[in-house]
Amino acid sequence: MVAVEKFVYTFEEADPYNKKLFGGKGSSLILMSKLGFDVPPGFIIPTTICKIYFENGRKLPEKLKEDIRKGIKYIEDKTGKKFGDPNNPLLVSVRSGAPISMPGMMDTILNLGINDEVANGLSKKISPRFAYDTYRRFLQMFGKIVLKIDERKFNILFEEVKNRFKALTDADLNEDALKEICERYKQLIVDELRLNPEFKDEDPKEILNNPWKQLEMSVAAVFDSWNSPRAIYYRQVNNITPDIADGTAVNIVTMVFGNLSLNSATGVLFSRNPSTGENELYGEFLQLAQGEDVVAGIRTPKNINELKKIMPEVYDKLYKYAKTLEKDQREVQDIEFTIEDGKLYMLQARNAKMSPIALVKTSIDMYKEGIITKEEAILRIKPKDILQLLYPRIDESKVKSKPIAKGLPSSPGAVSGKVVFSADKAVELSKKGEKVILVREETKPDDVHGFYASVGILTSRGGMTSHAAVVARAIGKPCVVGCEEIKIDYDKLLFKVGDILVKEGDIISIDGFNGNVYLGEQPTVILGKSKEFEEFMKMVDEVRKLGVRANADTPDDAMKAKEYGAEGIGLLRTERMFRAPGRLEVFKSVIMSQTKEERLKYLNELLPMLKRDFKEILQIMSPYPVTIRLFDPPLHEFLPKPDDLLKEIYETKDEIRKKELQSLYKIVRAMNEANPMMGHRGVRVGITYPEIYYAQAKAIFLAASELIKNKIPIDVEIMIPQVAEFRELQKIKEEVVEKAYEEVEKETGISVPYKFGTMIEVVRACLVADELAKIADFFSFGTNDLTQATFTFSRDDAENKFLPFYLENKILDVNPFETLDVKGVGKLIEWAIRRGREANPKLKIGVCGEHGGDPESIKFFHNAALDYVSASPYRIIVARLAAAHANILNSRLQKDIE
Amino acid sequence: MVAVEKFVYTFEEADPYNKKLFGGKGSSLILMSKLGFDVPPGFIIPTTICKIYFENGRKLPEKLKEDIRKGIKYIEDKTGKKFGDPNNPLLVSVRSGAPISMPGMMDTILNLGINDEVANGLSKKISPRFAYDTYRRFLQMFGKIVLKIDERKFNILFEEVKNRFKALTDADLNEDALKEICERYKQLIVDELRLNPEFKDEDPKEILNNPWKQLEMSVAAVFDSWNSPRAIYYRQVNNITPDIADGTAVNIVTMVFGNLSLNSATGVLFSRNPSTGENELYGEFLQLAQGEDVVAGIRTPKNINELKKIMPEVYDKLYKYAKTLEKDQREVQDIEFTIEDGKLYMLQARNAKMSPIALVKTSIDMYKEGIITKEEAILRIKPKDILQLLYPRIDESKVKSKPIAKGLPSSPGAVSGKVVFSADKAVELSKKGEKVILVREETKPDDVHGFYASVGILTSRGGMTSHAAVVARAIGKPCVVGCEEIKIDYDKLLFKVGDILVKEGDIISIDGFNGNVYLGEQPTVILGKSKEFEEFMKMVDEVRKLGVRANADTPDDAMKAKEYGAEGIGLLRTERMFRAPGRLEVFKSVIMSQTKEERLKYLNELLPMLKRDFKEILQIMSPYPVTIRLFDPPLHEFLPKPDDLLKEIYETKDEIRKKELQSLYKIVRAMNEANPMMGHRGVRVGITYPEIYYAQAKAIFLAASELIKNKIPIDVEIMIPQVAEFRELQKIKEEVVEKAYEEVEKETGISVPYKFGTMIEVVRACLVADELAKIADFFSFGTNDLTQATFTFSRDDAENKFLPFYLENKILDVNPFETLDVKGVGKLIEWAIRRGREANPKLKIGVCGEHGGDPESIKFFHNAALDYVSASPYRIIVARLAAAHANILNSRLQKDIE
Repeated sequence: MVAVEKFVYTFEEADPYNKKLFGGKGSSLILMSKLGFDVPPGFIIPTTICKIYFENGRKLPEKLKEDIRKGIKYIEDKTGKKFGDPNNPLLVSVRSGAPISMPGMMDTILNLGINDEVANGLSKKISPRFAYDTYRRFLQMFGKIVLKIDERKFNILFEEVKNRFKALTDADLNEDALKEICERYKQLIVDELRLNPEFKDEDPKEILNNPWKQLEMSVAAVFDSWNSPRAIYYRQVNNITPDIADGTAVNIVTMVFGNLSLNSATGVLFSRNPSTGENELYGEFLQLAQGEDVVAGIRTPKNINELKKIMPEVYDKLYKYAKTLEKDQREVQDIEFTIEDGKLYMLQARNAKMSPIALVKTSIDMYKEGIITKEEAILRIKPKDILQLLYPRIDESKVKSKPIAKGLPSSPGAVSGKVVFSADKAVELSKKGEKVILVREETKPDDVHGFYASVGILTSRGGMTSHAAVVARAIGKPCVVGCEEIKIDYDKLLFKVGDILVKEGDIISIDGFNGNVYLGEQPTVILGKSKEFEEFMKMVDEVRKLGVRANADTPDDAMKAKEYGAEGIGLLRTERMFRAPGRLEVFKSVIMSQTKEERLKYLNELLPMLKRDFKEILQIMSPYPVTIRLFDPPLHEFLPKPDDLLKEIYETKDEIRKKELQSLYKIVRAMNEANPMMGHRGVRVGITYPEIYYAQAKAIFLAASELIKNKIPIDVEIMIPQVAEFRELQKIKEEVVEKAYEEVEKETGISVPYKFGTMIEVVRACLVADELAKIADFFSFGTNDLTQATFTFSRDDAENKFLPFYLENKILDVNPFETLDVKGVGKLIEWAIRRGREANPKLKIGVCGEHGGDPESIKFFHNAALDYVSASPYRIIVARLAAAHANILNSRLQKDIE
Repeated sequence: MVAVEKFVYTFEEADPYNKKLFGGKGSSLILMSKLGFDVPPGFIIPTTICKIYFENGRKLPEKLKEDIRKGIKYIEDKTGKKFGDPNNPLLVSVRSGAPISMPGMMDTILNLGINDEVANGLSKKISPRFAYDTYRRFLQMFGKIVLKIDERKFNILFEEVKNRFKALTDADLNEDALKEICERYKQLIVDELRLNPEFKDEDPKEILNNPWKQLEMSVAAVFDSWNSPRAIYYRQVNNITPDIADGTAVNIVTMVFGNLSLNSATGVLFSRNPSTGENELYGEFLQLAQGEDVVAGIRTPKNINELKKIMPEVYDKLYKYAKTLEKDQREVQDIEFTIEDGKLYMLQARNAKMSPIALVKTSIDMYKEGIITKEEAILRIKPKDILQLLYPRIDESKVKSKPIAKGLPSSPGAVSGKVVFSADKAVELSKKGEKVILVREETKPDDVHGFYASVGILTSRGGMTSHAAVVARAIGKPCVVGCEEIKIDYDKLLFKVGDILVKEGDIISIDGFNGNVYLGEQPTVILGKSKEFEEFMKMVDEVRKLGVRANADTPDDAMKAKEYGAEGIGLLRTERMFRAPGRLEVFKSVIMSQTKEERLKYLNELLPMLKRDFKEILQIMSPYPVTIRLFDPPLHEFLPKPDDLLKEIYETKDEIRKKELQSLYKIVRAMNEANPMMGHRGVRVGITYPEIYYAQAKAIFLAASELIKNKIPIDVEIMIPQVAEFRELQKIKEEVVEKAYEEVEKETGISVPYKFGTMIEVVRACLVADELAKIADFFSFGTNDLTQATFTFSRDDAENKFLPFYLENKILDVNPFETLDVKGVGKLIEWAIRRGREANPKLKIGVCGEHGGDPESIKFFHNAALDYVSASPYRIIVARLAAAHANILNSRLQKDIE
């Protein structure tokens, strides 16, 4: 058992900043008391006692019982009232209060201290209605929470009486009705106690009549609620571990009554508008009411501004209190108060929950007002939340119909468009200026041109990290995946949801924030890029150290990247350039060529087009760096699939065509790989067919030389994928890239300055990073592939087959393809950085895997001292903010260590 | 230029153990001279001068020329003869001598010092025949080597004269004939010199007549031969780097003449029989002959034992010399000698090349005789060579016909059998007691039952590491792969080689040592497991520290493993047990079950069969450990391939069958994976379908309990494949294996002692080895998969597509699937061992990838302090020897460091 000096603390003697010991509610009471606000007298049993209670076999220590009596005595002295005294009774609340807010999880008993005698006394002293209304409220709450009686039994009795007295609302219940309710409640309690073995040794009369007994039972019940199954579950889900919170405090506080008189009221208040962030008191109050009445919503509360008129002094006090608390807590405050007979009592104050917009506005405002530091202003906004400001969403306040289905929200934003079922159709309609939504069971690389042509993507299969989801996020298209309710019939060009039938060309709307799918066009709303938002992001950039670039493959992407503040392109995938219409056929000829000469012929056809692409993007990004990754995928990805060919072979009636297909089938089969992810791709293609890399390098240097001629500043970086061994990189540098450089120099007379670097995405590259760093100007970690190799998980297969099971069963805590696996992949990265920098202190290091846009992963990258992360354009904002967070948190940690 | 103290060394003043400086031949002359043997006087130009010669633009330094004259003077003093003096001429040989033997690569000139005058003098002093025979030999050799004249031109002249003089053999040439040959040779030389620009400034007369000039030119020519294209290539291929040898020495030695008189002879001699290893002088000699005559093989030499009769004293001297050299060099000696007029001259001594059998025998003998240590005895035999002792090979001395084709020798041994073209046919015929050879274009896992049924495997495609080669080596069947000359026609059940037609049922023979394929049955020979072999392996086992186990899946394998000295099974793959006839259909039902109950039903059918298998193998291996790896491959490997199904769907006429196939196709498509290597397999299957692992574990414990009941000592180890994360291992241990253990304990009353461990074959497993070691009793590195993941190379794809290119172009030095990649994979292994042992000092660590049988890799494993390696049964002997080598070499290294 822990040695405890004190079992109870009065508000005056406790430390308001020790939430772990006194809980959230208690701490706020202590604080307000210390600040000299009007707080009902009370005391706190700290969280440590909760632990002792459980260690003690769920019994209250005798010393605690004594100290509770001392505490009550202290309150009696303060208030002049007496606990259990019918003539001037002290009623108290017994409230839980955990170090971390666990809304709705923990129990509270109000109005404790009332029994038949006290009710009778109060009846005389104040009014019978007040007395028996208070009494019935206590009996029900005590019965439910302490005596574990099913609440519905109280409600049934209550309704019976209400019906009999023909009362429409609770307020219509008269003295007699309330008295009868109390009588029937007491009988219910006595009956139930007899049936409950837990209380078999107890005297029901004693329980009903002895307030001290009730008080002790209530304290125990509040402790018990800490370990209720739902509370345990809540802590598990929210990762509230014992080092953060290991018990609840109990607050025993004088009851004050907002329903005592017309001059009484109860209300809630925000120190600023939690929805817009405006610096104005925001809240509402209800006269002649207790707190629960405000919550119940039976009567409509009044706007807090009304209070200014009714009780200007109370209002001014509230205003002053709110602003004082805000300064002390460095956060917008959410306050509960009661006015008893014209006197203000502060019941609770806590940090307000706010909308992302309000967070941005109040961050800027409070920073300018000197309430918080720049760092605090930045930390108030979670990176994952900030995106919500930038995307349209379905405006649910104006929506015209209910959603017809719900999938997984996998890329934010809401759009409406015509349904199409193929990428080609999407392209066809979009060329005519139509907005289309591509609807597929699932998507594959061949469909990507359809992504660009569509305003949104909807799939019936796949998870948050399926191909559709990943690509949609990467190019910033709203996307809903795994919407299993919709059944697609490609042949009939329609999908069904239950009885609803949606045909190609019908308009639907999807919301990538919540996964909702609607029929027809729906109104959307953008929550907003505001002046404050711009100011906020400026602050963010001042604070962060990590550079932020974009993964961008097209001029469109590049423009978006710049718009969102990317400081360059960290990954320009070049394979798309070979897939574009008019090029794919030529590139297929490259692949199927039998000789190098043939390949060169076709590559020379492609070269001017590649040059045009590079030139355009380099120009857009000028003067920022553009990291161009040379060709990466296996060549056979550009040819038809064997299965499809086989089907066509069997189905065609045209014998000549059949022959063609058969010979193509042979080629495709021969190129087919058991595990293409680990096959003939990346630098392996560059080594075996150097002419492909050569053509790319030449196109890059030609593009760059033309821009240099036009005095446009550029910063070219050439990057090699899939490198596993120094000699691969060396061969490509010396025999391909440098040759292309020299050739362009000779042709144009211009020496294009460039950097040469490598992806680090193969495990072995990490292990031989020191060698690679000798020849590379930069590293860029490809954490997607590195994660695959480290786990031996093929992402596609894992996410379709066993990874969901792994996450559900907690074999893995997070999807390592979303958040970097620090324990495994992280070790390799750290190793590679250390060895790389040792070998080449000038080495620039970035990351261009999807983790570059994930806040948790960015923390790791910051701490690992990377130079930059590269993320998809729409994640740039997130990455910038996450980088700032990482820097602030790490600096704090460093300070703590010092 | 290197500062050199001495340009020439006499034998007396040089160090006989500095081969790097004096070359092999020179060192032996120095040594024999030091030992007081009869050696013709001479001197050596050390290897350092060769380097200077090349740095000097292929010119002999003046100082060298002076010192050569001093050297000749020294010989003149010793012999009383005079260089260029017709009355008492000194003739010398000018011989190359590299630090490392480069047989046939380097040049030598004999009989130098003869010209017209000297020949005339010799003619008078000895005989005209001797004089002009010597002269013509010199002219031809000097002409060819120093003057670069095409040797065929000399031969044509020689044959012309021979014909004209009607001489049948060289020995029939009389004085006149020889004189004429000399004249015509001289004319040829003069003519050729005129045409050769290199000699345009030289006076042909001077070259022909001045022995000093000839001597200098010969020294230069010997130096030049060091950098001839073929010598450079030889050094590259044999990895002879400059730190080992960076030039040739030149030995200038008095000529002695085995053809001087009937009392003269020349011969070669081994100190022991190089073919059998018997301790007896072995060699031959030829009277009245020069060394080249022995080699030319025109006259039949006599057995060295004859010499004992003819010249007993010389023989005794030779015997004494041979044994003295053997002791000094600690190696069997290969000696050249000449007897000039009854006097023995030792010309060269070097370590003998011996057959593997002779190596084993002499190792044992020399060790027993105290000539060499146990360690030296062991190091004399290369691990890769020892296997040759154990396999039959085609006896080429008795072979009946020429090979019809040649493939890659990929698994040793020679066999004859009937040709079959399918695994099923192989099984069918083998059941009837027929010996069959499986002939396929290539093989796949489905064919493995055919491997077991066949005596050998022949494929027309694939490399040394193709499926066929790997499996054949693993199960020890002779195998020839990539035999591209044979064209298989599966439909007609035949193959063709050119015009030859081989039908199913025809008998062929294959030799896995050289890749030869023969028609018909051919005689074979086993070189042998002898008493000495057993003694040798006993010594090996005394010296090695690394344990050696076998990878074995069947009772047959297990028996072989024991026979070859395995100390347990390090890898028992269990998937074969599901593939056996009668089980595969049941297991397919397991895979296609929709519920757990259904799966359990079918698994229960399989359980008794699995138990029987485990029991049999455990019993065979008793009391050694057996490491059983639970199910590893993806489940879809047990179902038909989508392409095959599609073909069948389109081709069947039976509509019901078509429907069945279509629904099967859907299942197969759904289970299909993009990258099965990285997909749903290994522990991932164990986690998602725990009932499969449970059935296996239960079968193991039941088998073990029955053996324990019968008092048969067993040592069971259960191993989990593909583990990437601690919680995977924990879940399998706690929720599957321990449950099965408890169930069997309950059912049988027997608690089966067992160890629980994990494969380390996923990169992440290496990185979290410390965590895994907390729950694992042992690690076993699966270096095949680990190599795949470290390189992101799919082995199948790599070896078919780009790996050959990588090896050819020296991007990789070795195939990392054959020899462990120390730089990459090795680092991960070292990391895992260190972390694993830190966390669990009792952790047992082995390796069960194919590298476990590779000598180079075994060195690494020994140094990394593994407990054992596990190799395929036929590699056990290799592994034992390699492990001993590794220990000896490492101990030496440690001593050197100290």
